[in-house]
Amino acid sequence: MNTECFQQLEKVIHERGRMGIMSLLAASPELSFTDIKQMLEMTDGNLSVHLRTLQQAGYVQVSKTFARNRPLTTCRLTSEGKTAFERYIGLLERIVRQNRS
Amino acid sequence: MNTECFQQLEKVIHERGRMGIMSLLAASPELSFTDIKQMLEMTDGNLSVHLRTLQQAGYVQVSKTFARNRPLTTCRLTSEGKTAFERYIGLLERIVRQNRS
Repeated sequence: MNTECFQQLEKVIHERGRMGIMSLLAASPELSFTDIKQMLEMTDGNLSVHLRTLQQAGYVQVSKTFARNRPLTTCRLTSEGKTAFERYIGLLERIVRQNRS
Repeated sequence: MNTECFQQLEKVIHERGRMGIMSLLAASPELSFTDIKQMLEMTDGNLSVHLRTLQQAGYVQVSKTFARNRPLTTCRLTSEGKTAFERYIGLLERIVRQNRS
C-alpha cells in the first residue's frame, strides 16, 4: 500500500464541508451563496467560514453583485482551485482503488 | 449531485491520519504499533491519540503483549471497524464517481 497519498490529501479541501463546496463548484460555472447553503444544508456562518478558508487558499473567488436590487453573492472555482481539486479527487481515487484491491 | 454523501462521511475515519491507519489495518490481519508508525511516518504521540479515538469508536482493538521479553503493542480492526470502513470507502467511491461524470 502506498501511504504517501494520505499525507498528500490537502487539509483545506479534505474537510467534509469544504469538499462539498469544492465538488458543487467543480460541477457548475458559478453558484450563489444561497444555492450552496441550501444544497449542503449549512448555516450562513458555517458556509462563510469555509468560503473564507477556500478564498485564502486561492481556490474560490467570491463576488458580491446585485440582482433585482438585492445583494447577490456568487462563488466560482479559480483555475488554481480546479487544479487542486482534480489532484485531490485523483488521490481519493487511488485510495479507493488501493482499498478495493 | 447527491450532497448527502459529504455529510455521511464519518469524522472519526475521515481525518487523514486515521484514514491511513484504518486503510493499513483493513489490509492486514494485525499490525504492530511500530509498523503503523513507520508506514505512516507518525510520531508516537500522534499515533497514540488517533488509536485512542479509533478504539473509543469501537473500530480498533489494541493488545499489549510481550515478544522476546519486550513489550509489543498490536492493533487490529474490529468487525464494527471493518463495516464502518467499507461504508466509508463506498462513500468516497461515490464522491469520486460524481466528480468524474
